[in-house]
Amino acid sequence: MNPEPRPTLKGIAHQAGVSIATASRALADNPAVALATRTRIQALAADLGYRPNAQARALQSSRSNTIGIVVPSLINRYFAVMVTAIQDAASKAGLATIITNNNEDTATMAASLEFLTSHGVDGIICVPDEGCSEQLEQLHKQGTPLVLIDRELPGTAIPMVTSDPQPGIEAAVSLLVDHEALPIGYLSGPMATSTGRRRLEAFQRACVDAGLEEQLVFLGGYEQSKGFQGANTLMEQGAKTLFAGDTMMTIGVLEACHAAGLIIGEDINVVGFDRQPMFDLQPRPLTVIDQHVDTMAQQAFSMLNGLMAAEQPSQQHFLIPTTLIQRHSIKEKTSSHD
Amino acid sequence: MNPEPRPTLKGIAHQAGVSIATASRALADNPAVALATRTRIQALAADLGYRPNAQARALQSSRSNTIGIVVPSLINRYFAVMVTAIQDAASKAGLATIITNNNEDTATMAASLEFLTSHGVDGIICVPDEGCSEQLEQLHKQGTPLVLIDRELPGTAIPMVTSDPQPGIEAAVSLLVDHEALPIGYLSGPMATSTGRRRLEAFQRACVDAGLEEQLVFLGGYEQSKGFQGANTLMEQGAKTLFAGDTMMTIGVLEACHAAGLIIGEDINVVGFDRQPMFDLQPRPLTVIDQHVDTMAQQAFSMLNGLMAAEQPSQQHFLIPTTLIQRHSIKEKTSSHD
Repeated sequence: MNPEPRPTLKGIAHQAGVSIATASRALADNPAVALATRTRIQALAADLGYRPNAQARALQSSRSNTIGIVVPSLINRYFAVMVTAIQDAASKAGLATIITNNNEDTATMAASLEFLTSHGVDGIICVPDEGCSEQLEQLHKQGTPLVLIDRELPGTAIPMVTSDPQPGIEAAVSLLVDHEALPIGYLSGPMATSTGRRRLEAFQRACVDAGLEEQLVFLGGYEQSKGFQGANTLMEQGAKTLFAGDTMMTIGVLEACHAAGLIIGEDINVVGFDRQPMFDLQPRPLTVIDQHVDTMAQQAFSMLNGLMAAEQPSQQHFLIPTTLIQRHSIKEKTSSHD
Repeated sequence: MNPEPRPTLKGIAHQAGVSIATASRALADNPAVALATRTRIQALAADLGYRPNAQARALQSSRSNTIGIVVPSLINRYFAVMVTAIQDAASKAGLATIITNNNEDTATMAASLEFLTSHGVDGIICVPDEGCSEQLEQLHKQGTPLVLIDRELPGTAIPMVTSDPQPGIEAAVSLLVDHEALPIGYLSGPMATSTGRRRLEAFQRACVDAGLEEQLVFLGGYEQSKGFQGANTLMEQGAKTLFAGDTMMTIGVLEACHAAGLIIGEDINVVGFDRQPMFDLQPRPLTVIDQHVDTMAQQAFSMLNGLMAAEQPSQQHFLIPTTLIQRHSIKEKTSSHD
């Protein structure tokens, strides 16, 4: 390995034994270059720390006017709304969108990223799986316009937009203290996701700040069945409030309450996560944490659009604050004794 | 125009002024051929009625092991479930999936089909928009493996899988007659879609068969707001039952009933369309028509997989019968007077 101070396209072409034109096409992920050659040249460029000239990138004529979106689920309406909002923003900018869904499977996500880049999309917005962090870092280093959304990758320089769970969760905990809806049973998302970890931390910090003793926590997952199971477990442990850490577990909580014949907002208090029509379409609509997924989607597209025009984003990490939407799933205090 | 009895690849290459290899690549939608050339050669082949040799297609080495799916919405959970089920089936067969959503927009759908074919997916499953019928017919004539799902294209030879609304709707109408839940107010989908037309016909036929006078009909659309508006209109007209013609209008019906403070299954009867968790997660779960979207998705993938292996499907049109899922949204008769 000859460490060169500033690797050039010419140098890469020379080392790879191809023409400059081929090296340039390979780095632009032009499918006219055989996949094996492209991969080899891209790996070489990444090893050498090559960064294509920004203006050259912007001027390159191989634009497909198409962006790719990578999400872990479409059954989870939160991601369906996110995808649709990104697509709307892209469409207003004259860009088409293609979507890949990986059902939370790392290998499927890796293949999706490979497909999108090898078919020359102009940029990618991705809900990252930590198992794909190396591949994502490499795409970023190669200069592929890439924005992460919803979940963080620890220690990355890739631009990202996530929601900040703290403000919404803090407001919810104060409201519950105020309504004496204690103890709270929190249904946490998986510790392998940044959203799962951050929301649990936010909940625990909010409890400490409110002067509460340690509350009940169920370590669940982003599935309806985990929400159902968690709700039953927490109620057995004496929880007066079920606080769900995502859309899917909120659905599971609803299922458990209906199955037990409990009136939400009367027999049991519920705080849900995300705005969903089905959370409104209850006899007592649910009080929920709103992540403002439309705003996140628009911000992510706007960052991607900038990157595609070779602009650097004004900040690397946009945090969109959550808010509490207060409805009727927490019982009103009937009397006051002081 | 020289009508030739059996157009050959050689003849097309000659007429287009390109080599046989280029003509072959163009017809296989190989992105190595410039898009304009590909389009010109494909149009010429379509004009001449050229059909590539099935075995040659099967042996061609340009397979991407990726299929494309084209749907009109992802917010509508019915399509999110359909996409996920097709993807599961494809994944078991070792194929990746890319998805495009057109939000019921014809131009977006046309661009999606163009993207998918020009990027060499091996086959496409598509919920067709009638405005794209010519483009779809051309893809089919060019030998692109293509299966239509959910909505029909009138008069086409393209393989398709749709659901047959008659059995489910007939069972629902009998049940309503039996429970004296009359008159029925039916919320119909748009007449520009085959599903909208066929379900309305099925409803009207079922009423005639049950010896009912003409029932109330609201001409709506596949949107929650149309369901809300239709429910209110039909209740003003005296409907005792609201029968919604799709998922989105069923949500609108729920919204209207909750807004009016009506207890479903007591003050008003409801028949919904499609199985959705939110239709179960009601104090009285909804009686619904089930389209068996998983079965439709599996059937569509199995047909596509056959076409990709150059097999002819055993029938051109698979109709999956709907069934009625009886729950608790129709009031039990309290007394009998005969």
